[in-house]
This record gives sequence, structure tokens and C-alpha cells, in this order.
Amino acid sequence: MNAVKSVTNKRNEGDSVQTAVLGVSGYSGAELARLLLHHPRLKNTPPVFLGRPVAEGAAAKEELLTALHPQLRDGNGSAGLKIEPFSWELLKERGVKVLFLATPHEQSRAYAPLALEHGIKVIDLSGAWRLEAAENRAVYKFEDDGTEVAKATQAKAVYGSPELHREEIRNAELVANPGCYATSVILALKPLTEAGWADTERGIVCDAKSGVSGAGKAPTAKTHFMYAADNLSAYGVFGHRHTGELLEQLALNSDEIVFQPHLLPIPRGILSTIYVSLKETKTAAEIADLYTKFYAGSPMVRLFGAGNLPQIQYVVRTNYCDIGFELDKSGRRLILVSCLDNLLKGASGQAVQNLNLICGWGESEGLE
Amino acid sequence: MNAVKSVTNKRNEGDSVQTAVLGVSGYSGAELARLLLHHPRLKNTPPVFLGRPVAEGAAAKEELLTALHPQLRDGNGSAGLKIEPFSWELLKERGVKVLFLATPHEQSRAYAPLALEHGIKVIDLSGAWRLEAAENRAVYKFEDDGTEVAKATQAKAVYGSPELHREEIRNAELVANPGCYATSVILALKPLTEAGWADTERGIVCDAKSGVSGAGKAPTAKTHFMYAADNLSAYGVFGHRHTGELLEQLALNSDEIVFQPHLLPIPRGILSTIYVSLKETKTAAEIADLYTKFYAGSPMVRLFGAGNLPQIQYVVRTNYCDIGFELDKSGRRLILVSCLDNLLKGASGQAVQNLNLICGWGESEGLE
Amino acid sequence: MNAVKSVTNKRNEGDSVQTAVLGVSGYSGAELARLLLHHPRLKNTPPVFLGRPVAEGAAAKEELLTALHPQLRDGNGSAGLKIEPFSWELLKERGVKVLFLATPHEQSRAYAPLALEHGIKVIDLSGAWRLEAAENRAVYKFEDDGTEVAKATQAKAVYGSPELHREEIRNAELVANPGCYATSVILALKPLTEAGWADTERGIVCDAKSGVSGAGKAPTAKTHFMYAADNLSAYGVFGHRHTGELLEQLALNSDEIVFQPHLLPIPRGILSTIYVSLKETKTAAEIADLYTKFYAGSPMVRLFGAGNLPQIQYVVRTNYCDIGFELDKSGRRLILVSCLDNLLKGASGQAVQNLNLICGWGESEGLE
Amino acid sequence: MNAVKSVTNKRNEGDSVQTAVLGVSGYSGAELARLLLHHPRLKNTPPVFLGRPVAEGAAAKEELLTALHPQLRDGNGSAGLKIEPFSWELLKERGVKVLFLATPHEQSRAYAPLALEHGIKVIDLSGAWRLEAAENRAVYKFEDDGTEVAKATQAKAVYGSPELHREEIRNAELVANPGCYATSVILALKPLTEAGWADTERGIVCDAKSGVSGAGKAPTAKTHFMYAADNLSAYGVFGHRHTGELLEQLALNSDEIVFQPHLLPIPRGILSTIYVSLKETKTAAEIADLYTKFYAGSPMVRLFGAGNLPQIQYVVRTNYCDIGFELDKSGRRLILVSCLDNLLKGASGQAVQNLNLICGWGESEGLE
Repeated sequence: MNAVKSVTNKRNEGDSVQTAVLGVSGYSGAELARLLLHHPRLKNTPPVFLGRPVAEGAAAKEELLTALHPQLRDGNGSAGLKIEPFSWELLKERGVKVLFLATPHEQSRAYAPLALEHGIKVIDLSGAWRLEAAENRAVYKFEDDGTEVAKATQAKAVYGSPELHREEIRNAELVANPGCYATSVILALKPLTEAGWADTERGIVCDAKSGVSGAGKAPTAKTHFMYAADNLSAYGVFGHRHTGELLEQLALNSDEIVFQPHLLPIPRGILSTIYVSLKETKTAAEIADLYTKFYAGSPMVRLFGAGNLPQIQYVVRTNYCDIGFELDKSGRRLILVSCLDNLLKGASGQAVQNLNLICGWGESEGLE
Repeated sequence: MNAVKSVTNKRNEGDSVQTAVLGVSGYSGAELARLLLHHPRLKNTPPVFLGRPVAEGAAAKEELLTALHPQLRDGNGSAGLKIEPFSWELLKERGVKVLFLATPHEQSRAYAPLALEHGIKVIDLSGAWRLEAAENRAVYKFEDDGTEVAKATQAKAVYGSPELHREEIRNAELVANPGCYATSVILALKPLTEAGWADTERGIVCDAKSGVSGAGKAPTAKTHFMYAADNLSAYGVFGHRHTGELLEQLALNSDEIVFQPHLLPIPRGILSTIYVSLKETKTAAEIADLYTKFYAGSPMVRLFGAGNLPQIQYVVRTNYCDIGFELDKSGRRLILVSCLDNLLKGASGQAVQNLNLICGWGESEGLE
Repeated sequence: MNAVKSVTNKRNEGDSVQTAVLGVSGYSGAELARLLLHHPRLKNTPPVFLGRPVAEGAAAKEELLTALHPQLRDGNGSAGLKIEPFSWELLKERGVKVLFLATPHEQSRAYAPLALEHGIKVIDLSGAWRLEAAENRAVYKFEDDGTEVAKATQAKAVYGSPELHREEIRNAELVANPGCYATSVILALKPLTEAGWADTERGIVCDAKSGVSGAGKAPTAKTHFMYAADNLSAYGVFGHRHTGELLEQLALNSDEIVFQPHLLPIPRGILSTIYVSLKETKTAAEIADLYTKFYAGSPMVRLFGAGNLPQIQYVVRTNYCDIGFELDKSGRRLILVSCLDNLLKGASGQAVQNLNLICGWGESEGLE
Repeated sequence: MNAVKSVTNKRNEGDSVQTAVLGVSGYSGAELARLLLHHPRLKNTPPVFLGRPVAEGAAAKEELLTALHPQLRDGNGSAGLKIEPFSWELLKERGVKVLFLATPHEQSRAYAPLALEHGIKVIDLSGAWRLEAAENRAVYKFEDDGTEVAKATQAKAVYGSPELHREEIRNAELVANPGCYATSVILALKPLTEAGWADTERGIVCDAKSGVSGAGKAPTAKTHFMYAADNLSAYGVFGHRHTGELLEQLALNSDEIVFQPHLLPIPRGILSTIYVSLKETKTAAEIADLYTKFYAGSPMVRLFGAGNLPQIQYVVRTNYCDIGFELDKSGRRLILVSCLDNLLKGASGQAVQNLNLICGWGESEGLE
């Protein structure tokens, strides 16, 4: 554990850290690679990019990062970067201190406990370690759920929402990076639920819409251009697996909130429209004040003034979560609009934000 | 009024009627022209297309329909069709029996009473005559509101939703064709509100999304490709003018329903996601049965079975309104999804459906 | 052969014919189904829709057409239409006279000769029978090329471009429906090459762009929304398999023409920009006159006047091929622009046009 | 002139320069603002943003940069940046050394000579000063063409293509930043025309396609989402005003090259497909070698290997110009594909590249 601890508390300008990324083939992996390659603290410490372990008896195969993602080609020497076969020896040899897992859920369940054992901190972008309650985890059907290792690992996991758990993340060994939809809804609602202003008995409605990158890189009937373009469709009705994150982080029960996602015909971006009844009449100024105070010190949340709602185009390719609202004349019905880029604040950008916290750096370094 | 009456009750295969369209320059006007030019009853009776009246002292100017809308060019002789300057003499001379107004609200306020006076039936696509309650009309700021003529005209107007007011439309002199958003929400909710199943005290949430053609043909900052593409934005919060139609047609008060529109980066199509709490526990079969009975005899509504929600791509370029739903395990929370093409079932297609009713023809003639 | 002959020469209003469609799962198949279901001659004779033959020992499996293509649901009874397992017995039993093959090339090679043997006319939408010269066919690598059956079948095939081979098609047993790109280029160039006006020694350049439906329904890396959206890419450089059709139909050798396709981020439509040097100076009026005469009697080609080029939006969802041009000041350099919908005039619409010719019906029936 | 000279030759890490931007309301202006605000050399020297001069007698009006371009909001203090009314006094007071003109052509004609007179270097993004030959400038109809001031200013102008005129730019007082289309075509062809390999007598064909941002921010019929989306159209046939730049920079006459632009349904990006006949047979390796040598030392041009053409998605939001090619079997026909982001390498990115050269900084600083 000493190795893990030693990462923390570095705060000098010249500090750096050796990172590694397992799973760089998807959209989040590519964005994470791009962010880390341009991070000011990592100029001289490019991440180790890792692919599948070499199968027993097979020859090691390396691939160029830019062959997989041509858009990463630049003059910074990225041209020579390789994706190397994963092994714990390699991580040790390179002195890796923080490992990003941009892997499927099941793989993250397997790799995270082993990394901690090797004294390597983990930032996991999957849903493997986000949920404390077994009933919320049930949707993932983890094979190892209930084992001692899984319980011990879950106990170390911190939900990686810097705006909610900044201090725990600074000292975390395992950061469970939040889901994209979940981030947009939780950041919009948390000030309200924490203050006890929402009349949750009347039910909160979260109508969320996401670009196609959220559906992953695998070609399927639903990611075909002809299906997604010129279309809009609702999916995952009453059962999207991000729902558990909302319940736990907002301390709500499942009767108090409905979450409904839709597939937008755009590459990236999420907009959530959230309908809340208030227990007591409030003014717009009171609402604005509540949010301003809650997000003081949170550089990656941008609050919008009255009459000026956020839009997807303002957040695409940024790590911001933009939040705006309108209150009706009665002062009792509130509509919140929350936008973010699902691959950045909803995935890789938030992961880098968590890296910054772990390393004691400025929270938004490498993200503006 | 005799001339008006005489249109009704024509039911023979060979029947036709002389129509006219005022305001053919917009998207709805172009779709209306296309539908009427291909309507089986109107093969030998093309509509009279009308533009602005000739200004005093100016020379009459005619324009080719296909110069304005090149996509209307076909081998049916559409090439020669002219847009002629409006005058009541021209309408009389051509024997026009039904006049479509695809005009701005204020113009429809002016033209409709005069047409009725000339014994011409009117199908108005604007919002001019849709609303009975003065407080709901207030949003339009009609200058003539409260005058005797306006009151008398309003009294003759029938809300042109065939599924709700089929019989009144058959005998109407003035049909107020519904708004696009309003149609999608009203058709989805009417069976439920009429049956008294919705727990309206908990509030109904209607989150609606529309393609850009709904914003009209005028080039503005918001219809610019760079604004709309790759984006999603909410607008008209707590104040969209279709709200009044929802209240009147669903017999709700403004505390019982929230309607929130969004601008989708697609040319056409509306999807409304509607969240309802039920007063009593129901089964999916009961819900399905309620809708099946309500829409028996309504050829332009397609009901979707469980686990198979409608999508915008299924309705684009059709006159259908597709309605589907999912009920949660508790049997108390219902999500309805309703889709239509805003230019067809949401405007010109529904107008032709109303023409069919007025003329005693099959309700879906010329619409499949 | 008698059965085949009997189809021809039907010309009365009430005439119909029993058709069948093998391969209805792709985009062209769905469009073909839609066109045939709404064809005025086929109101009472819906096509037989055919899927894979039943495998030996397996039970016959039927599927609803509307389960595969929900957009085909309408009030016309399409809801009950089944996709039945293919067998020659079924075709005989139903009295099928014309069989559409919307199948992969290899399957069309196998089915077409057998259909002719059964006295059934064939309209094949694949590339199986379009090319006379073995060297042009080489790109398809047909396994049966050179066999007696293949030679005999090829000898019966007529290239299904009504504007070029109208009379042969009327009497054809096997129509090889043209490729989508090929149609757009051939129709734009044929008047010019036939008149001998093009200076082919200087080389003709065809820069073509197609929507994503041209790439087929199979989900692949290139049809993924994230690949196609917000992008443009060139592909098939110096080797697209439609090139052979250009060479044969325009009587050019491969030095005289370059054809380069691109993938557009739109669902459907092709625009070809074609650059030609003229042997002698011509006026715009002379060019216009040449085309007008060539396409007199061709209802599905629309010629655009000077200064008014066609665009994809004008042809999408129509069976027209729009052709326009600009001539430079010297009168020696010509740019032609040709547009069509790749699924209609470029595939299923042209196939129905060919059906109309075979049956002696109006060439554009069911296509406007 | 001394002030102007003094900007040059600064080469230390800590060097900076005071810049100003006139015309920040358009897409290029917004991108330029973004680039300058994040340029490592300008961290402590944000540009002065300038709007219209105060009209005589009117009160000075300031506007927030982020009110105009909400996407520029970030934690770097951009929130407070103002757009100030232009005046020469203000420029002097702030010590402005380099003025970017992101203004319409006519305004750039007026401002550039005055700036030079005030000893301020100019990087002009308009077409005002790009063309040496009067006949090529004719298309712009400059009112001041032929005046002494105009001649003297033109004589000082350097065409701002760093890859072609790097040394002249370093010492230029007035940089005429190239057109977006022109950049994509010139960079693709220059190695070939300079080497004398292109058979220009047979004619070079440049088929170019651009995203909608190239059409400007003004809402017009052609920038309306409904016009541009799901469409492709050719425009500016035989007369696009970037043609003159091609002729001058490639030393061709107008018979030797055809340039044809098209409007793509995407926000940004240009792809040019260029067809060239070669005088003599070449191998792909010889072509590749020619380009590699020509662009050695040009960090913003990325050359693609055989069988791997560039695409718009690889260059969007970068300052690269990607160039690839395919040679046919004969070794005589070449297809070049060139891609860039029209707002970056085609406008503001190239302008910053020129700033870097003027200031003696690394050519790609602030651009990766």
C-alpha cells in the first residue's frame, strides 16, 4: 500500500506520475489517451497503453496507437506510441502508479482487486464498482458478487464524482468513475435533494437524451447510421442500469424518481431535462443561490443564469457540466436542464479530473 | 351558407371538390400542395394555389409552384401550376368550396370570417381558431379578440382532431387544424384522461422533441444548420403556445400538466415522452385494451404492443400517429411514447384528413 | 417459355400480374415491397414475399413483413403479410409470373437460370447479370462464370436501363437492374457519348457521392453512425465494381473515364459531378437541346435549365434522375450534375419501372 | 515601421506579443479567439477583442465575449473578456503589435493600409489582399482597386501559406491568410506542379466539398438546416472566387484547372478530390517521396501512406492538412485527396500559424 500512498500529496509544478490505460480501443479509451497525451503534468511521462495479455504460447503483438485512432496523430511523437500486451510485470517495470480501466464491467471486476494488491491505484471507467447496494448491482449480474474479495474491493471504492466526494477521492485507492447519464442527473439534482427542497413524493422525472457514442463502438443494428440518423428513440424504459447510481448518490428510493434515456442522432453529448416539484414556494434567486453555493469551488460545473438554458453544443468537447433551470410562476414547479459531453465529463474527462485529485494537482489541469 | 352545406354528404367514388390553398410558401404549404396534387379524389380538380393579393395599382404577378418547390416537379402536369394572386372573385370564379389557410395566425384571423361569409368552408392550419378560452388565446395577442365577428367565428370553429371530434368535423364550416406538438400529446393522453385513470394531482410531464421544420422556413439564428446540427436545446419553458390546446382538449388545468419542447437535429418528426401516475394499479393488458377501444375506427393511429416503442423513423413521411407505452412493475407509473410527422399528422396530413371528413370520403384517402 | 410470354402485352386498365420478391430484408427489398404494395395495378395482387428456403429437416418458419420493417405498417392490410420460405412449388402454386431478386450477387447467379427454366421472368437487382465482358465481370469473381448455363443466361439478360433499352426490356426474360452509381453516371453521359461530342481522349472524370444506405444494412465499422456522421470519405479508388457498367453502356475504354465514389453522411441519395471536355465548341442551348431530344419520352428523367443545378434533396424518395449542367465561357468544358435516390431510381424504383415495361403498363405507374 | 520590426526575432520561451482581433462575431472569429486565449505564449497577454467603432455621437457599448460565444466560457477568466469598440487610440494604448482582421473583404481593404501606417502588422483572414493579378481580383469588385494605396499595400502582402512562403511570412507586415478551399487544393497540388509532373494540358479537376460553416454565420436560405441537412449541392460553377488563388499559387492558367465546390451536410471540414494526369509514368513510391521531401519541415501537413486516404473526421478541430493519393495501374492517372478543417487550417488556425512565424515561435505552438 505504500506505493499507492506515495502518489498522493505531490503538489509541485514539476510533479508527474506514471499512468497506464487498459482498454484503449473504444471511444472513451481514445479520449482518455488524447487527454493524457496532452496533460501538462504528463508531458514527459506518456501513459503506458495496454491491450489484451498475450495468450499462453502466443507471440507478443504490439499495435500502434495511431493505427487504431488516426485522429491521435500529431507532431508530439504520438506516432511512435504502442499498445503493449498487458502484464503485471510490465506495469511494475514501468513504475505505473495509477491504472485506468477502460474495460468492460466484468474485466474491471477482475483487474481492480489485483491492481490494488500490486499497490497500484485504479480509476475504473466501467460500472463495476459504482454501486454499494447489492440490489442495485443486480442488473449487472456480476459473477463474483458476494465474494470476500469483491466485498473488500467495493469497500475501498469511492464514487468518482469530484463535486460530491472531492476529499474521499483525494485519498482513494479505487475510484469508480460515474456513468455518463448518472453524472448529468446527479449534478443537476444534488443541491436540491441535499437541501431537502424537492417534493420527492410527487416524483422526479428525468428525461435524458444521449448521442450515439454512448452506445459504444461495436457495430450493431442500433448504431448503424440508417437507424440513428434522422431518428429519435426511447430505450431502457424503467430499467437503465444508471438508475442505481441516481438512487444511491441522491439518497432516493425507486418510487421517487423516473429515469428515461433516448438515443439522439448526434455523435456526442447528453442533455437531461429534469422535472421537480418543490415542497415549498421558492424564488428563482433562491434556487440560483443554492446552486452557486453548492458548486463554489467546483471548476467543472458552469451555472447558467435565468432565461438562458444550456445546450449540447456548448459542452461538446469540453469537460464541463452545464446546469440551468426555469421556475414557473407558482414557484413550485422547476425544470432543470443539464448538459455534458458523455465521453469527457461523462467518462474520460471526469477520470482525468479524478487523477488530478489523486495526485494533488489542480482539479481542471489538462481539461481546459 | 348553402354553398358550404352542399360540399357535405358527397360520397360517390367519382366525387371531387374544388379546393384552394392560401400560403403555399412554407413547409406545411408545400406538403399540403403535394398531398392535394396526388389525392385520388382531386385528380381532375387540382387546387387553386394562392399568394398575396395584388397590391392596389400593382400588376398581377404569377409564380410557378415548381419554381418555389422544385421537389413538386413531376410528370402529372404539376410543371404548369401557378400561384395566383388571392382575390374573392377568383375563388368564386373557380367555384372553390374549401379553402385551406396555411397562413400566419393573424392572417387566418382575418381571412376565415370572410371565407365563411362567402360560403366557403375553411380548414385553418394556424393557431388562430383552436382555443375557446380567452386566457389560453392570450399568448397569441390577437388584435381582434373580443369583437363580435371573432366571437361568432370562434363559435363555429371545430378543433380538427378527427380522432376526438370526427362527427363535428364532418359538419364543420371552420376546422381549426391542431398544433403539431398538441396532436402528439393529446392523442397519447386522451384515452387515459377521459377514462379518469390518470392521477393528475401528481402532475403529468410531457417532454417533447421536434425536428427543425417545426421552426418554420424563415432563416434565423436558430434554424441555421450550425445551430441545430449536432445539438439539442430546450425552449419555450413553461410557456409554449400549444399548452392551451392540451388544457382544453384534455380538460386539465395548468397545474396538472407540464409541456416542454426541444429542438432536434433532424428535418422532421416529433417524439413525445409522457410520464403519468395512475390513480389505481393497472395491468399492461388493461392499458392496451383502453387504447385499442378508444382508437377502433381511427385508421391514422397505430398502437404499439408491449416492449416495442414507436420511433420517429417509423412515422416520417406518413400521416400516422404511433402510440406505445411501458408500465412499471408497480402498475402505477406509466410512460407513453407518441410519434408523428409534424408536417403531416401534425399539420397538412391532418388537414387533408379533415377535408376527407368534410367531403364524406374515406378518412385516410390520399394519405397512405 | 409460354408462361413468360403471356405476361407481355397486357395493357388494359384492370390488368395485374402476380409478382414475388426474394430477399426483402435489406433496404432495397423494403423499398421494393413498399412500391409493389402501393402499385395501382397490384392492389388485389400483393407480391409473394420470400425468405430463405426451409433447410432440410427443419420446420417451415414464417415471419411478418411488418415485424422486419415496422414502417410498412398501414391500414391496407399489410399487417398480415408474411415472408414465406422460398420454394419453386410455392411460386408455381401462387402463379408467379415475375420474380424480383433482391439477393446477393452469388444467389442471383444461382436463382435466375432456374427461374427462367420455370418460365418465370426475372428482374435481378444485383450485379450478377449486368456485364457482358468477362474482364468486367472479373471483379465479382463469380464461381459459375464460363459455364454453359451462365453463358446462356447472360445472353438473355437485358441491361435494365429503360431510357437506353426500353424496347429490349419490354420483351426481356431477364432484366439486369443497373447499379445505383452507374445509373446516375450513364444517364448523365449517354446523350453526349452517343452524339460523339465528348473529347474522351482528355478523359472524363466522374466524382460521385452516395448516402449510407448504399453501403447496405449490415452493421460494419463503416456504417457505424460515428464513422459516417460529420464525415466524408473516398473509397473504391480505381476499382469500384460499377465501373464496368459505365464502360459497357457508354462504349468507353478504361483510359477514357475515371469513376470515384465517396460516402456522404446522409441516409440516401447520390450526386455525381461529371467533368467533360468537348471536341468542339458548343452553346448551352445546343447541349440542352441534345438532352431534351434524347430524353423525350422518358418520364423519369427531369432536365434542369441553365443556372439551376439539381440537388439531392429534390430526388430523395422519388424515382427521378435529375440532370443539369453548366458550360464554361469557352464552350469546351462542361460540368454535368446528376442526382437520384439510390434506393429508388438506383434500385427498386427502376426495377418497378422495368416491371411496368414488361407488363406493357405506363412506365411511371406506381412511381409518382 | 520600427514598431513592426520589433515584433520579429523574439524567440525566447517567455516571449509574448500583444494581439488584437477585429471581427469576432463569425465562426472564424470565434475560433481565432479560442486559439489565442489558449496559446501558451499569450497566457498573460490576452488579445484585445474589437467590434465596430463607436458611431459619432453614440455612447461606447461593450459586449462580453462569452455572451456572443457561450462555448468560450471557461475557468481561465474568459468570462470577463469584453469586445471593445474599435479605435486606433485603443490599439496604441494597449500596445497592439499584430492585428487580426476577421472582417468582410471591403473592411479589410480599408483597415489594412491604416494599420500598416500605424506600425501594426496585419494578418488578414479575408480575400482582400490574396491576389496579385487584377483580373483575378476582379471577382471581388474592390472599389479601391488601382489606387496608389491599394497598390502599395498589395505589394507588401505575402500569401499566408506557411508551407509555400515560410520565409517571406516571417518578415511580412501584411499576411493575406489563404482561402479554405484554396489551401486544401494548393497544398495537395504544389509538389506536383512545382516538379512539373502534372500534365496540365489534359486539365486538372478539383472536386471540393465543404461543411456549412464555410457559408458563414448569416442565416440564409442556404444555411437553413432544412436546406443543408440530408442534402448535397454544387455551387459556384466555373466562378468560385478561390479559383484565382489556385491559378497564382500553382502558376496555372484557367484552362489547366477546374475547381468545383459542393455544400456538405456537416458543420465543418473540407475534402478535395483532385484528378491529375501525369506527363510520365511514375510509381507510388516516387509520388510519396516527392511529397515527403516537399513537406519535410512542415509540421501541419500529414502525409498518408498508400491505401489509406484521409477523411474529414481525422482533421476536424485540428490545424492539419492531411494529404493522400492513389495511382492507377498505368502510373499515369493520380487521384489526390486532401482534407482540412475550414475554420482552422482553412482560416484561424493558419492565421495563428502565421502569427507564430511572425513572432519567431515554433510554427505549431498553440495548435496541437
